[in-house]
Amino acid sequence: MSDNKSDRLKARLARGFGDRGPAELAATRQMVETIRQTYELWGFEALETPFIEYTDALGKFLPDLDRPNEGVFSFQDDDEQWLSLRYDLTAPLARYVAENWDRVPKPFRSYRFGPVFRNEKPGPGRFRQFLQFDADTVGSGSVMADAEMCMMAADTLEALGIPRGSYAIKVNNRKVLDGVMEAIGLGGDEGAGRRLTVLRAIDKLDKFPVEEIAKLLGKGRLDESGDFTKGADLDLASIDRVIKFTGWLDHGVGSSNTTLVNFEAAVGNSELGLEGVRELAEIAAIVESSGYADRIRIDPSVVRGLEYYTGPVYEAELTFEVKDEDGKPIRFGSVGGGGRYDGLVARFRGEPAPATGFSIGVSRLQAALQALGKGAAEPAGPVVVLVMDKERTGDYLALARSLREAGIPAEIYLGSSGMNAQMKYADRRRSPVAVIQGSNEKEAGEVTVKDLVLGKEMSKKIEDRAAWTEARAGQVTVPEAKLVETVREMLARY
Amino acid sequence: MSDNKSDRLKARLARGFGDRGPAELAATRQMVETIRQTYELWGFEALETPFIEYTDALGKFLPDLDRPNEGVFSFQDDDEQWLSLRYDLTAPLARYVAENWDRVPKPFRSYRFGPVFRNEKPGPGRFRQFLQFDADTVGSGSVMADAEMCMMAADTLEALGIPRGSYAIKVNNRKVLDGVMEAIGLGGDEGAGRRLTVLRAIDKLDKFPVEEIAKLLGKGRLDESGDFTKGADLDLASIDRVIKFTGWLDHGVGSSNTTLVNFEAAVGNSELGLEGVRELAEIAAIVESSGYADRIRIDPSVVRGLEYYTGPVYEAELTFEVKDEDGKPIRFGSVGGGGRYDGLVARFRGEPAPATGFSIGVSRLQAALQALGKGAAEPAGPVVVLVMDKERTGDYLALARSLREAGIPAEIYLGSSGMNAQMKYADRRRSPVAVIQGSNEKEAGEVTVKDLVLGKEMSKKIEDRAAWTEARAGQVTVPEAKLVETVREMLARY
Repeated sequence: MSDNKSDRLKARLARGFGDRGPAELAATRQMVETIRQTYELWGFEALETPFIEYTDALGKFLPDLDRPNEGVFSFQDDDEQWLSLRYDLTAPLARYVAENWDRVPKPFRSYRFGPVFRNEKPGPGRFRQFLQFDADTVGSGSVMADAEMCMMAADTLEALGIPRGSYAIKVNNRKVLDGVMEAIGLGGDEGAGRRLTVLRAIDKLDKFPVEEIAKLLGKGRLDESGDFTKGADLDLASIDRVIKFTGWLDHGVGSSNTTLVNFEAAVGNSELGLEGVRELAEIAAIVESSGYADRIRIDPSVVRGLEYYTGPVYEAELTFEVKDEDGKPIRFGSVGGGGRYDGLVARFRGEPAPATGFSIGVSRLQAALQALGKGAAEPAGPVVVLVMDKERTGDYLALARSLREAGIPAEIYLGSSGMNAQMKYADRRRSPVAVIQGSNEKEAGEVTVKDLVLGKEMSKKIEDRAAWTEARAGQVTVPEAKLVETVREMLARY
Repeated sequence: MSDNKSDRLKARLARGFGDRGPAELAATRQMVETIRQTYELWGFEALETPFIEYTDALGKFLPDLDRPNEGVFSFQDDDEQWLSLRYDLTAPLARYVAENWDRVPKPFRSYRFGPVFRNEKPGPGRFRQFLQFDADTVGSGSVMADAEMCMMAADTLEALGIPRGSYAIKVNNRKVLDGVMEAIGLGGDEGAGRRLTVLRAIDKLDKFPVEEIAKLLGKGRLDESGDFTKGADLDLASIDRVIKFTGWLDHGVGSSNTTLVNFEAAVGNSELGLEGVRELAEIAAIVESSGYADRIRIDPSVVRGLEYYTGPVYEAELTFEVKDEDGKPIRFGSVGGGGRYDGLVARFRGEPAPATGFSIGVSRLQAALQALGKGAAEPAGPVVVLVMDKERTGDYLALARSLREAGIPAEIYLGSSGMNAQMKYADRRRSPVAVIQGSNEKEAGEVTVKDLVLGKEMSKKIEDRAAWTEARAGQVTVPEAKLVETVREMLARY
């Protein structure tokens, strides 16, 4: 091995990826277990598909508008076929169901969990690998399946500890949006460009006053800096329809019924639009009769970008605010969403295969739970048995073993350093207890057990002789036979 | 969507990859949880590194001799750097520890779990994505760390339900092997080619009688078909050394002490070899004093291929036999292994960073547990509430909800088919119980609960009228308020 620094390989995480330690992993594990149990209560079964699929099987159903296919990590196999890392958990499910159509029960309810990959420019908090937890029902065209997803999402958030009133499941329908487009003459392929302009304008409603949105829907808008953004060039009646659709008059938080009335007005005579409104009315009725009306509402603000959605779309939003480190209020917003995608399985089968699914963004939800104080606590480290005399390693091993046999995580110090370094090590390991057996103690058949948590608190306030003595209270010397009992009592303090 | 078959996309798993369903996933989950708990008892902490690393950071430390670097899935990032999917969990750990050297406690004990990827020709039972569960200790050069790995491996197998006597942890030392090579004049770079020939000959000891091995170590061997395999061209004394090293005289199953005596004879005056023997003696002593001597033994048959091992190497082997479907005995053999790799972290740091680690092949171990009857049982499906009348969906939803609120997985049928199809669906879902409420029952405030497991058993032996009546015993009609209680009693039968 060369000592020359420039020869040395640099140890560095790949751009846009992250490592995760015990606290974060424990929180994820706890969260995933709760979601899993909730999904199984609703009759969903576990499924896992591989991380790699044929690129053509995944298709170009990338989850955001405007996203080029380069958003996927791809590579060519030695038989020249293109492979890709999965970018979501929906496209692989569609492949699975199509491939196993005759074997799966139909309707097929399944859940899947794991990392997905996006080949994008990374940024702060924007990773190229992140966790999703999905549930999907394939083979049912009934809006019951969509309503069920929404109710299950509500149950999941509550099972995770998010109180009712701190979240909302918002439901819209792609058909209503398409109906509005039809009603303003922007249906079909030729309207695609202006449709996008309209969608972008709608998306700015939480930033700009409605007059500015109207400009973006009309001729265009000049901003303060003098830049001109070309508008969608709609006439006044059409602008009115779009504004109506957005529920702006109700400040975006009207009741489900108000929203449905607005929608009906906005879609005009569009058959598709009216069908969308009927579906939403049915969902609202199911939600109402099942007692979820205070948590799930029809809401125009859900305009999910996913090109492949064909019917109801839904989003789980956290509505509470927390303060960041600088005391500024922050909202977590959307922590999951989904909708009906009747075309995704069908493209393999050449016949209809209705489907609907919901995807949780695990990392963001985990951050929110942490902020709410519902995350997992930093896990404690093991009990550390200090090595006082290398020759007596066998004794220390035996002490550690007796603790492990009682179900208490324990280790012996494996390094070659003295007492101080070992105590520092125990601190870094977040060990709550250290076990010490010097030669005097060994001779007397005793062992010293030190409460490191108490010891740490004490050391903060040690200022005089009296406190020093008090600090000794953090440790006791007991007969070897009482080791397990003593450690257990100490651990029970925290 | 075109109806033309040839236009249709084919739904197919990528070559060498697999899907996993609920039974297999439940078994993995249970297994992983047991391993995790055992590792935490030994003081190891959770760590997760990303699936993608810079190719140069992973290095060419592929886990088998002769393997070209093409064994890795790689792709170029848009800044032209090469990225690779991890092919094991050791190389990323080395990167992590080197990158976070000042932050991690030292020695650093961690465990990691997850899929790894190999870009190889797939074959039967040979996948390109598979699960590993690793534990590593970085920063301790002490053989205590190696001995600990072996003892923890034994604890893990027993925690998973593999009885003592049905497995062995075998330990060897790379230094002993290198010492033997030195002693027979094959040390250094110039001996590399013949060294490989010697290793291959040793590897055939379980196939050929010792005389044939001796030929492979000497001039060469002519097989029955007339093919000649060139040998390593060793002299008689060297052949004797190598045979001695393999423990052939003890049929490969000598005690640790016998093996150590053989090793000492085989390495001759090689300093490196003698150091290796001393280390093994130390491990044997620790294992003995800790009461693991009946499970962990020094064994010459461990000649792990990993180029990066520098000291003790160990392997967990299942020694029991099971019968396959044709009644032929099969052995699972190695389910995990590892060793000391002092160079892997060091190549980033330019200074020594000793490390040792153990990796479990999760899939193979899971298959072995299944064969032993220690795998997870096929999970039962949810209770299915049949939809007898679409108009009354709200009632069925309420019945399902009351079951879920009692912690019983339940769903309503979401399809549009009749009674028979629904019962078939429940069967495919492995539902133990169906809930049926026709209009008569609704009027009477009652509900029928059907035991599908019993029903299935009955239907197998229904041959006469009497049996038909008995089969009815599998279902009861009770007041709605007794639904949960009745279902719970039925579920408790299995």
